[in-house]
Formats: sequence, C-alpha cells, structure tokens
Amino acid sequence: MIQHIEDLSFETEGEVTIRDLSEDLGRIAGGSGVATGQMLVFTPSSTSAITTLEYEPGLVKDLPAALERLFPKDIEYGHEEMWHDGNGHSHVRAAFLKPSLVVPVREGRPALGTWQQVVFIDLDNKPRRRTVMVHVWGEPSGR
Amino acid sequence: MIQHIEDLSFETEGEVTIRDLSEDLGRIAGGSGVATGQMLVFTPSSTSAITTLEYEPGLVKDLPAALERLFPKDIEYGHEEMWHDGNGHSHVRAAFLKPSLVVPVREGRPALGTWQQVVFIDLDNKPRRRTVMVHVWGEPSGR
Amino acid sequence: MIQHIEDLSFETEGEVTIRDLSEDLGRIAGGSGVATGQMLVFTPSSTSAITTLEYEPGLVKDLPAALERLFPKDIEYGHEEMWHDGNGHSHVRAAFLKPSLVVPVREGRPALGTWQQVVFIDLDNKPRRRTVMVHVWGEPSGR
Repeated sequence: MIQHIEDLSFETEGEVTIRDLSEDLGRIAGGSGVATGQMLVFTPSSTSAITTLEYEPGLVKDLPAALERLFPKDIEYGHEEMWHDGNGHSHVRAAFLKPSLVVPVREGRPALGTWQQVVFIDLDNKPRRRTVMVHVWGEPSGR
Repeated sequence: MIQHIEDLSFETEGEVTIRDLSEDLGRIAGGSGVATGQMLVFTPSSTSAITTLEYEPGLVKDLPAALERLFPKDIEYGHEEMWHDGNGHSHVRAAFLKPSLVVPVREGRPALGTWQQVVFIDLDNKPRRRTVMVHVWGEPSGR
Repeated sequence: MIQHIEDLSFETEGEVTIRDLSEDLGRIAGGSGVATGQMLVFTPSSTSAITTLEYEPGLVKDLPAALERLFPKDIEYGHEEMWHDGNGHSHVRAAFLKPSLVVPVREGRPALGTWQQVVFIDLDNKPRRRTVMVHVWGEPSGR
C-alpha cells in the first residue's frame, strides 16, 4: 500500500459558504498513484465541516436554512461570555457536522454517487482563508 | 498491510428504512484476510447515510421521529423549485448524518459494542435499490 | 505502511460528559512510529460519540444545551417501552453525532487546528467506564 498527501487552500465568504471539492479531489486521487483505496478529507478547524451534498442551488440554500433553524445565530452561547467573537453557533454547528470524511477510491477516482459531491462548509461568521488536508492510501495500479 | 473490497446490494422500502448491516460486515471482515485494521462503510448516494444504532424496534421508530422533528418533510425546500421530486428533506438529512463510517477491525471482526450495530439509513422518499461499498485494510493474521 | 493499536480507558460522570482526548491522542501518535498517516478514534458504544470541539468552558455548556434543544430528554421514546432505562434520548443523540472520527497524522502528531480538540462525549444518563479504540496507520519516519 502507498499513500499520498496534498492540501487544498482557498478563500471563503463566511457563513454559510458551501464549496464543492469534487473536482479538486478527483485531480488529487488521479495524481496519487492509488488505484483502489481510501481518501481522507479533513478540515483542521473548529468552525468548518466536511460532508457530502448534491451541490445544486436549491440545497445550497436549504442546508444553511436547516442550520439556522436548529442552531440559531441569535440565541445565547456560553462561548460568547469569554470570547465575544459572535461565532458560538459556528462552533456548535461544526461539532455536529464534523471535520472529517473518508471516501472510497476506485479506478483512481473518489467513488461518489452521481448526484453526490464532497463539500467544505465554512460555518464561521466572517471570511476566512482555509486549508483542507487530503490523504489518499491504497494499492497502486498494476498490482 | 493488505486490503479487501466488497459491495453490498439490497432493496429498501423508502423513508425511513433502517437496515442492520452488522451480519454482512462481520462476514466481509471474516473473509477479508485482515486480522487487525480498519473497515470503511460508504453509501455512494446523497439521500442515504451510515451510522451506528442499537437496532431494536423502539429506536427504529425514534430515529425517524427525530429526523421528522428536526428536518420536517412538509416545509419548503429550495431543492423542490427545480427538481419537484419531493425529497428536499432527504438530501438535507443525509448531509447531516453523512454517508461514511470507519470502524476498527480486531480478531477479524468489526470491533463494535455489544448493543451497537452499523446501520444503513435510506432517507429518500421512495423505494430504492442501494449499493454500499465496504473497504477493509490492515495486517493479516500470522504477522 | 505500518499500524499501531492502543486503547484509552476512563470513567465519565454521565450526561453530558465531554472529555478532551487530544493529549492522549498526541501521546499515542508519538509512540506509534507513524510519521505521516491517519488515526481512527472510535467508541464501541451506542450512547457516546467522538467529534471535535474547541474545548473551553463556554462550548462545553453550549453543546449539551443544543443536544437538549434538539433531542429533549423528556419526550417519549419508543426505546423506553421495552427497556425502561431512561436513555432513549442518549441513543438517538449518539446516532446523529456518530462514534467514529479519522484525523490526519503529520510529523508524528494528530494534525488538528489550533483551537480544535478531539472530544469524547458521553451521552448516557449515568456514569460509565468507557474504552476508546485508537488505530494509527501510515508511513514511518525515515522513509
């Protein structure tokens, strides 16, 4: 088994930015040398998350609406008492959505469904520069 | 380290079908040749999810009830404006529950708790034929 | 690639105990021999979960408050009809938060963000003795 490590880096526009990573992940898998294996996508942050979503304009509004319904921005958060940075809701949302996703790799590509994209979700309350870590491991082709 | 790949395939009855995968995963781990390692369980779909649950009749009703309370079927979803397929809630639920789970493998078996089963959850609003991808990697026995 | 397996064991105080595992995970990664790779953190239980959180006193109250808002302890759960152990809400919460997290390892350490800690969350309604499984795999240093 071999492994390959690569980072993605991009700017976001603050809450709630949903970014489709599928094209980048396809490129990384293709260049990794791994034919069959696994891919970890991880955001080293406590105010963002990784999941999958059909990336289309309707759902890109529906997901933030659900987050606001379940974890409203304007209720009281203990996090604010010390930090006063207005992003208590961002942290709680991120703990529920989680920063990590492992996807199968087959034929040198992330083995996603037809309507399934891997997305990065910025939950923080201001624009940020973000880095996403991608680790691929598995068997190379020709074995 | 070695790896082993296998798919599961089954019919579901639409929302919300919860299927216990534990027996299938035990069989796959046992036949994988891996004694100690890891197992990825992944649904390549944007309207289903993988998690763990004590699979008993009460919780099999409680989990759908919680989904309906948090992500009601009958509120407005932007997804409907273009697609009109009535499953906006299915997509949002799936993005929260996520399609991927990694479980430890020990002594050739998924190392789950006594009351803990790996479950597939079909969140779509109609019966579907589903495929679940299972990847096992780790050290073979005798090493 | 090599792998290393280790367990953590500790007592909790019942719901909702949030325990910062970062120091333990740093020690395990450091002793694993893996320089670059991945780390699986898994709780073999249906009433606890693993995620990341900025571990500070405000959020340690905000996360249980969100859980109680979304999955109230005092509504009816089908789980109670047979089991009468008062922890239906614990099971449903655990199915949403999930028992598994995979984190990148770089330079022999979990590659977490500055304000991001890996936490164990006990969702059960009484104190418990818990075991968390940690699996590390990847390339050793010097390769």
